[in-house]
Amino acid sequence: MEQPENPCRLAERVRRGDLLAAECPSRSVLKHLTGRWAVLVLIVLQGGTHRFSELRKKINGVSERMLAETLQALEGDGMITRTDHHVVPPHVDYDLTPLGSEAAERVAALADWIEESIPKIARHWKKSA
Amino acid sequence: MEQPENPCRLAERVRRGDLLAAECPSRSVLKHLTGRWAVLVLIVLQGGTHRFSELRKKINGVSERMLAETLQALEGDGMITRTDHHVVPPHVDYDLTPLGSEAAERVAALADWIEESIPKIARHWKKSA
Repeated sequence: MEQPENPCRLAERVRRGDLLAAECPSRSVLKHLTGRWAVLVLIVLQGGTHRFSELRKKINGVSERMLAETLQALEGDGMITRTDHHVVPPHVDYDLTPLGSEAAERVAALADWIEESIPKIARHWKKSA
Repeated sequence: MEQPENPCRLAERVRRGDLLAAECPSRSVLKHLTGRWAVLVLIVLQGGTHRFSELRKKINGVSERMLAETLQALEGDGMITRTDHHVVPPHVDYDLTPLGSEAAERVAALADWIEESIPKIARHWKKSA
């Protein structure tokens, strides 16, 4: 059945065995939301407003550049807002939008499941070590 | 409250505002499961057994090397099994384990949400364009 108005229902199409188009817009959002740092940014922002420096401190290991790029991509997809208070020294806040909160819930569900499953997963690490 | 037997409950710790340790094992699993290609591999394997070449065909844009690395990481975490039928030409099958099926469900939930939310997300693209 053709659905020309929605040509790339991602999970559904892939399950049916259709080709997953590289140019599908869902795929760029999926890439943004599941990027190495985006996942952690979304979870941190579930805790409320954060400044850039606060995000950097909580997400141990992220470079300034990578964090800036991650925030920009999430802002471009409407997941977070960036509020510049136009003061010196600069004060810029980041928050989840309602859309971003919904995304963060799904991402956190995955993170929580990983946490619960770590004992099972760790058994496989021992096997392959 | 200290929980020395489980020092890195990922989402919970981050929400509380604790430092997210780069060396936490949950974080390496999160990285594997949300990697650019892992997400798509998990969703494709929800549809059943696939050979390497079939995965490559369905996940448009992945290189042979990146797919091999993704599969190896997922196998190491116990998410997928690799079955070599020891025939010539080689026939190797990949399947989700029960653990991998649980992970795939969470990942697919995110993908499905993205799909539903694309109209809302796309409005932000227009704004920033």
